[in-house]
Amino acid sequence: MADQDELRVRKDAVGVALPDALREHGVELDSALDASEELEGAAAYLELHIEQGPVLESMNLPLGVVLGTFGVERHQVTFRGQAAHAGSTPMDKRRDALAGAARLELEIREIAKRTGGGAVCTMGGVVTKPGIVTSVVETAECLLDQRHLDATKLAEMLGNAEAASRHFAEEEDIEVEWERIWNIQPILFDEGLVELADESIQEVAGTSHRVPSGPLHDAAEVARAGVPTVMLFVQSLRGLSHTKLEDTREEHLELAVQALDHLASKTIERVASG
Amino acid sequence: MADQDELRVRKDAVGVALPDALREHGVELDSALDASEELEGAAAYLELHIEQGPVLESMNLPLGVVLGTFGVERHQVTFRGQAAHAGSTPMDKRRDALAGAARLELEIREIAKRTGGGAVCTMGGVVTKPGIVTSVVETAECLLDQRHLDATKLAEMLGNAEAASRHFAEEEDIEVEWERIWNIQPILFDEGLVELADESIQEVAGTSHRVPSGPLHDAAEVARAGVPTVMLFVQSLRGLSHTKLEDTREEHLELAVQALDHLASKTIERVASG
Repeated sequence: MADQDELRVRKDAVGVALPDALREHGVELDSALDASEELEGAAAYLELHIEQGPVLESMNLPLGVVLGTFGVERHQVTFRGQAAHAGSTPMDKRRDALAGAARLELEIREIAKRTGGGAVCTMGGVVTKPGIVTSVVETAECLLDQRHLDATKLAEMLGNAEAASRHFAEEEDIEVEWERIWNIQPILFDEGLVELADESIQEVAGTSHRVPSGPLHDAAEVARAGVPTVMLFVQSLRGLSHTKLEDTREEHLELAVQALDHLASKTIERVASG
Repeated sequence: MADQDELRVRKDAVGVALPDALREHGVELDSALDASEELEGAAAYLELHIEQGPVLESMNLPLGVVLGTFGVERHQVTFRGQAAHAGSTPMDKRRDALAGAARLELEIREIAKRTGGGAVCTMGGVVTKPGIVTSVVETAECLLDQRHLDATKLAEMLGNAEAASRHFAEEEDIEVEWERIWNIQPILFDEGLVELADESIQEVAGTSHRVPSGPLHDAAEVARAGVPTVMLFVQSLRGLSHTKLEDTREEHLELAVQALDHLASKTIERVASG
């Protein structure tokens, strides 16, 4: 993650500095890393989560074992053209920043498709300036998110998106600038715990399935800290997440808790037996 | 323009109703139309304006006569898909509203090119919701502006953009909704005054040129009210408008004022001679 110096200068939308916001909740930035001593002697980390995706539902399975979390590359990609009157500027004299954003939005879908292996690329938002109906767009700020379980393929996807954006910028006579917001490497969970999780799900639901996780989870950070880690996913209805429509069947929640109980017992047993 | 009932319900960004905002500046909405009696006896309307476009500069001419103003169709086009987690939603299961907006942004350029005759189409802004890096875009609200001097061609351009948006929505498994913000028919200026303006420009600058106006002007409303109208354009540097970089050479401003003076004298003379 970002180091403390980087965190120190960050501010929220109303200008509150990150250290002050943390302090209001009883956390001191400078001593926060001391909390890592809590990890001493941690033998395993188990996490149960909704899938937040459509895979288990499409296979008609209540539960799955998570193999690890996707690596993520997150960038702000800013195209800069020239504001100009929408009525008086001939089409061939425009330097339209939105054209760059539109072409990149469509190209990242091709990049994900070509890469395969569960690759996902998302333009989650575009902010257009001046953003008025009477002007060609001068600046288009795009939020780009790319994920893959394979670090090499993730790096290739990022390189391809950058190259495409520069090609579009050249063709549109606009500029493009990339700023990394955040990134994380793919994280693979503990093989032994993946086996135990598989057994536990089979015991309570008959069939198990192994899936990578596109979303990040607390488990990823714990695994990076060196603690053997695994996660269970329970089916999400309609694959929806980050919306009010997110839901999971009650019977699936019950099975999920039973599977976590089985997994916890098996894990404790294995740890106790050395 | 919109009728009074429509104006009555409009509010600005902070919730002030249009009639109240007008009243603060001494205008009563209900009696505003009485001001049209000021037009009684008006023999002509002459307007001098910067071009706000690159045509005169590209021809190395200081001044031009305006033939009329483009008709305008202005719409909010809203694409609606489904918010979904950027990490967990496979590419082929997405209903990405931004994809509809991106395809329409690129298509309107083709529509303008195919139509020709100075046609312009602009997507001036896109608002994406939820607009966060971790979610597929659920709603993309696009501002669309289309202009042409020929009413039939303008109607065709609008129809083509609507048809394209519905085709994209179907292919992307999203919805699209069109709401007209405003429109105006093309308005042609008075032929006799166009001749006088041409003579006036030739007298002060040697060469004149006739151009349509993409931007709207006060002159368009006055012409619609039945007053013989014409406009002069003075060159804009780099064709820029609606930006701080907008500028016009001082020597061109001087020529413009001289041409307007010639035009006013000629017009008064013609009116006086009946």
